[in-house]
Amino acid sequence: MADRGVEILCVGTELLLGSILNGNARWISERLACLGLPHYRQTVVGDNEERLKSAVLESADRSSILITTGGLGPTPDDLTTASLAAAFDTPLDERPELWREIQDKLGSGGRPVAASNRRQAFLPRGADVLPNPLGSAPGMIWSPRPGFTIITFPGVPSEMRAMWSATAEPWLRLHGGAAGIFASRQLRFTGIGESNLAEQVTDLFEGNNPTVAPYASLGDVKLRITACAADPMAAESLLDPVEADLLRRAGQYCYGRDDDSLASVVLQLLRDAGETLAVAESCTGGGIGAAISAVPGCSDVFLGGVIAYSNAVKQKLLSVNPKLIETHGAVSDPVVADMAQGVRKITGSDWAVAVSGVAGPGGSSPDKPVGLVHLAVAGPDGCVAAAERFGGRRGRDAVQQLSVIRGLDRLRLRLLNRLPMSQS
Amino acid sequence: MADRGVEILCVGTELLLGSILNGNARWISERLACLGLPHYRQTVVGDNEERLKSAVLESADRSSILITTGGLGPTPDDLTTASLAAAFDTPLDERPELWREIQDKLGSGGRPVAASNRRQAFLPRGADVLPNPLGSAPGMIWSPRPGFTIITFPGVPSEMRAMWSATAEPWLRLHGGAAGIFASRQLRFTGIGESNLAEQVTDLFEGNNPTVAPYASLGDVKLRITACAADPMAAESLLDPVEADLLRRAGQYCYGRDDDSLASVVLQLLRDAGETLAVAESCTGGGIGAAISAVPGCSDVFLGGVIAYSNAVKQKLLSVNPKLIETHGAVSDPVVADMAQGVRKITGSDWAVAVSGVAGPGGSSPDKPVGLVHLAVAGPDGCVAAAERFGGRRGRDAVQQLSVIRGLDRLRLRLLNRLPMSQS
Repeated sequence: MADRGVEILCVGTELLLGSILNGNARWISERLACLGLPHYRQTVVGDNEERLKSAVLESADRSSILITTGGLGPTPDDLTTASLAAAFDTPLDERPELWREIQDKLGSGGRPVAASNRRQAFLPRGADVLPNPLGSAPGMIWSPRPGFTIITFPGVPSEMRAMWSATAEPWLRLHGGAAGIFASRQLRFTGIGESNLAEQVTDLFEGNNPTVAPYASLGDVKLRITACAADPMAAESLLDPVEADLLRRAGQYCYGRDDDSLASVVLQLLRDAGETLAVAESCTGGGIGAAISAVPGCSDVFLGGVIAYSNAVKQKLLSVNPKLIETHGAVSDPVVADMAQGVRKITGSDWAVAVSGVAGPGGSSPDKPVGLVHLAVAGPDGCVAAAERFGGRRGRDAVQQLSVIRGLDRLRLRLLNRLPMSQS
Repeated sequence: MADRGVEILCVGTELLLGSILNGNARWISERLACLGLPHYRQTVVGDNEERLKSAVLESADRSSILITTGGLGPTPDDLTTASLAAAFDTPLDERPELWREIQDKLGSGGRPVAASNRRQAFLPRGADVLPNPLGSAPGMIWSPRPGFTIITFPGVPSEMRAMWSATAEPWLRLHGGAAGIFASRQLRFTGIGESNLAEQVTDLFEGNNPTVAPYASLGDVKLRITACAADPMAAESLLDPVEADLLRRAGQYCYGRDDDSLASVVLQLLRDAGETLAVAESCTGGGIGAAISAVPGCSDVFLGGVIAYSNAVKQKLLSVNPKLIETHGAVSDPVVADMAQGVRKITGSDWAVAVSGVAGPGGSSPDKPVGLVHLAVAGPDGCVAAAERFGGRRGRDAVQQLSVIRGLDRLRLRLLNRLPMSQS
């Protein structure tokens, strides 16, 4: 029962040095909100036994559940498990089955297993193993005092997330003591800024059940709707009218829900139509292809394409007319349209997305500033090209990411609308 | 004097809901590290007076300086200033000059100034104003107890940073009492696990000045060396012997330092040799190209390449011999070598990296399990292909990322060694 709330304690000197962003705290916070568990405090301490012990003991007096990340590795500055045991005067016992598992995992590549990894097989007496399906560092679920439970995770985000989903979340659903059954859904939007979207739905942010909360990241805004009720069906039925209301107001910007990505949505639209896709990328250098390839099972739709970073590759592989590059520059509608048509032709795909832009910081000119990106979508019904201006202040990485997002979204809108337009 | 250290307290329910990343904590942490100020703890609490007061009073017993962000706005859930005053039983006084300033700032656009903004002109008795050159929310520098100073900032990152640079940093330089000048360097390693690397240098982790600390992420381990001395030159000269020692022990795995990436190192090696690069990617779908394109100024080296996701594209664009695919499968040394040679030929590049693998979760067979990836590097002195087994448990994303890393590292090692080997 998390009646005194759940706390997060992130352990790592790299966080105190500012070497890395605390993405784990954000991710766990979001998951706790979905579970309907009260979460009042987050703490970060370094790889220091005394400070770690103090933080844990303070939390034990204040909260029902403490979730820790970091400090489970095999190196001498990985102190979490030993410090927790010391804080509650509990001995560490070796778990032989854990040591065997660690050896199996690390030894599978034929590499020798470092002796230091053996430390990871020790847990406080009475603690349950929280299995790590991806890495060597197991976590634990341990109640060193009545009414206080510690759940430990490694700091590596992929491992933490896999462990959360497989074991910790089911445990928290059962033992977290949320005040009812929570159901939540998220709608994903692109092509609209967070504040503009918020303005259209601001009154819904005031609701208590369901609640609506925005989560913004580059080029993407999620609205999460969360409802609490006595049973799952009642909770779901609270969500329906709010979702319908959100879609009525801003549905044209909504590309998907929950775990959808722009790429997965586009792939599904093409799969449903029995059509295929290729890409021709200049300033993104393969980023659109990588986003598509990130989706499991994309091979029935995605054929591949050309990374046409240099003008010579644009001409030779994509048959872009050199006069177009001379006249309009490589960052222009005619060139990007030729790229899209070219890749469609050589791969035999039904559809193609092409991009050419000034990602910066160099390569700009007065009429082609950093952040100017031209995108084209070619399909059975023609090719449409147009420019986007992402601005130069955001940096190269953001211009490239936004190019990927806009390219995929243009294709999505084109597939949804199937407008028989032609240009170039 | 920050002899008991500096703490950061971030105030905002949006942080506890996971709506936003705590970028302020990271930014301030990095600034504190540069100033050489000891920083042992970060806390996040929501917009709640009682919890905010507890957090501040705990910090007063533990630290010399507390830096807060958030909760300085005009709305009812902006509680930081009032809660701090209440925590130390100090009355709030209106500062007429602040109220005039706020009216000037907010009224300048012709907008009426909301009465709620008047709250922002109240500060605890005895506090100094920390001016906000960008927004309406001023901060403060206040010592409610001898030996304990609170510095408050708004949560808006641009305002916080401007106030930090203009006023807080000079104050901290004067009053923070840093024990010296800090210098730090990081060495980046790949091709070796964190624990194996740690084992080779474990005695160096025990050092106090310089300190050595590892930071691991997928396929990559950094070792950060930090030294403190009376002046920058002395600090740097403390770093040199430790760096040399680390390189002596594990130099063959070290690909760069500080802000280097594998891609930037490879690009520089090629640039120095006046050579060019192309890629041919199957299971990574453009990820190698995207990693290379992430480096500003890559266009003098990187020509582009082919995303050969389908076998048809492998054959048509890269002239891969269909019999090789039939006999050995697309995930094999002969095919990946043909891909590398093919892309080198059609782009006219000096070097090429090619990859073909089973990223999963589908597409595997008994002799081609998920995680099996074949990589080839082709150059003026021949083509070498070999397999990597990343294992199926890590997930598609990790297999793709590791393929990118290993592909670039293979090229790096090849360029460093220039071995005239030939295969395929």
